[in-house]
Amino acid sequence: MKYFEDVRVGETAVLGSSTVSEAEILAFARKYDPQPFHTDPEAAKTSFFGGLIASGWHTCAIMMRISVEAMQRERAAGAGSPGIDSCRWLKPVRPGDTLTLNREILEAWPSRTKPIGFVRSRSEMVNQKGETVLAIVGVTMLRRRPDTPA
Amino acid sequence: MKYFEDVRVGETAVLGSSTVSEAEILAFARKYDPQPFHTDPEAAKTSFFGGLIASGWHTCAIMMRISVEAMQRERAAGAGSPGIDSCRWLKPVRPGDTLTLNREILEAWPSRTKPIGFVRSRSEMVNQKGETVLAIVGVTMLRRRPDTPA
Repeated sequence: MKYFEDVRVGETAVLGSSTVSEAEILAFARKYDPQPFHTDPEAAKTSFFGGLIASGWHTCAIMMRISVEAMQRERAAGAGSPGIDSCRWLKPVRPGDTLTLNREILEAWPSRTKPIGFVRSRSEMVNQKGETVLAIVGVTMLRRRPDTPA
Repeated sequence: MKYFEDVRVGETAVLGSSTVSEAEILAFARKYDPQPFHTDPEAAKTSFFGGLIASGWHTCAIMMRISVEAMQRERAAGAGSPGIDSCRWLKPVRPGDTLTLNREILEAWPSRTKPIGFVRSRSEMVNQKGETVLAIVGVTMLRRRPDTPA
């Protein structure tokens, strides 16, 4: 099990990759972000973006899936997240793009009241051309190692 | 059509509501955030949260859907978003919760290079008990009124 005490500030890791299909872009957007440049390949051609692009929230959701899969591989004692400090959708995500999640640990500190610790990290999703499409600084919580003195 | 020029700084609005079902929580989480407290009602009972809760990204996605529906009612000339400045998941969202989206316009400024303007707003999702479950400060882009001098 990976606990808060096992987190190393400054550590960087490549957590995984995912290829985004047109069908997945359309399914997410029709349910949660039905703007024509996310839901209609033809209408998207005449939009600002020149073609269909994924909802930014969809890119965040894909980042989360890669992140959870990495946590499961490491058996990390994840305990949720209070939120994110910033999120920038830097480039459009288009059908067929393969996104790779890179993460750097920026800071870690224990809770004063609960058996958990907070970890601030920078996550970047990079496409197959090496372009960063999403940059997030966020905080997650991990449980503390049970045998750690308070 | 509602263009950038029609945005009023300081304006507040109630944009809409949505009730979150257990089936929707499970479907989103199994695809994008498969942590047991989001995907398994039984396992969730023994978690930190004492029961099933929605993925924070799911709450953001529901906020986006309410927001897009409001934009469609107003015929707002939305042109995407560069990102969000902060996001805090303040309280768990549980099956059956009804979330209402409130928004306040904080700031608005035109692009120097493109026929769009930027709008910074604070969005809050409030549950049926009056608790704020999600608070986001973010930036969206709207097209400028076509007959506006540069």
